[in-house]
Amino acid sequence: MTRFAFEDFSAGQHIDMGTVVVDRDEMLEFNRRFDPQPFHVDEVAARESLLGGLCASGWYTCSLFMRAYVDTVLADSTSQGSPGGRELRWLAPVFPGDELHFATDILATRVSSSRPGLGLVEITGTASRAGSPVLTLTFTGFFGTRSPSSR
Amino acid sequence: MTRFAFEDFSAGQHIDMGTVVVDRDEMLEFNRRFDPQPFHVDEVAARESLLGGLCASGWYTCSLFMRAYVDTVLADSTSQGSPGGRELRWLAPVFPGDELHFATDILATRVSSSRPGLGLVEITGTASRAGSPVLTLTFTGFFGTRSPSSR
Repeated sequence: MTRFAFEDFSAGQHIDMGTVVVDRDEMLEFNRRFDPQPFHVDEVAARESLLGGLCASGWYTCSLFMRAYVDTVLADSTSQGSPGGRELRWLAPVFPGDELHFATDILATRVSSSRPGLGLVEITGTASRAGSPVLTLTFTGFFGTRSPSSR
Repeated sequence: MTRFAFEDFSAGQHIDMGTVVVDRDEMLEFNRRFDPQPFHVDEVAARESLLGGLCASGWYTCSLFMRAYVDTVLADSTSQGSPGGRELRWLAPVFPGDELHFATDILATRVSSSRPGLGLVEITGTASRAGSPVLTLTFTGFFGTRSPSSR
């Protein structure tokens, strides 16, 4: 049976999504392709920047979050994608070798008024390092309901 | 001389960032690594999903936007990163072969009250296909000022 359908989420729920260590080579490959700013690709320029050292593109951190979210929640779910989010905060630079701890907190749930069988789940995702958040994002997930008449 | 320092942005400014065609192989590689949901990695499952076909992870679309933004604005700028954004909308699924047109619009600018020599620029970025937006994001960029006393 699917682990996460719409009915399996409720406000206040906390889901631990485990940890990942930031891989320097993959981070640099991502940065070079998608975000080749000096502080993301050049060690010397990075040390002289506001960020203080060669660090991950914020989109790489989001992508690592996403993979953890897929592995722990979406892979065994009725997920039907996401229309987006209302908040995205890069709170601190993320460096190679950092251990990031991912979690999601469910803020609210409601069934769709326009699409039968679909529910909306409002979620805050967090990546933390040593207990301090480095990324938070609040977004909406679409999930199929178990029952067509779910409310 | 640097093309984009803080003083070179002003509310109402529109910057065209050109077009990119979504490459199926790179999109799939990204999806498999960071967002391996069925509708992002499996042709058949994708056709049966709400999204209607094998489509880009929203984070891939954000990453393509970022690269266009770096190439046209940040590469020759005083950019010092971003603290995040307050809105991220994936308005329609993005498919391989889609031609995306990227642009940024400047909403507001102000100098930092706490960090001399730093300014904050509020920006809406858009990716459009055939004139219709598929991605919008509103975020803040940090940019060094040309003059330490800039206001």
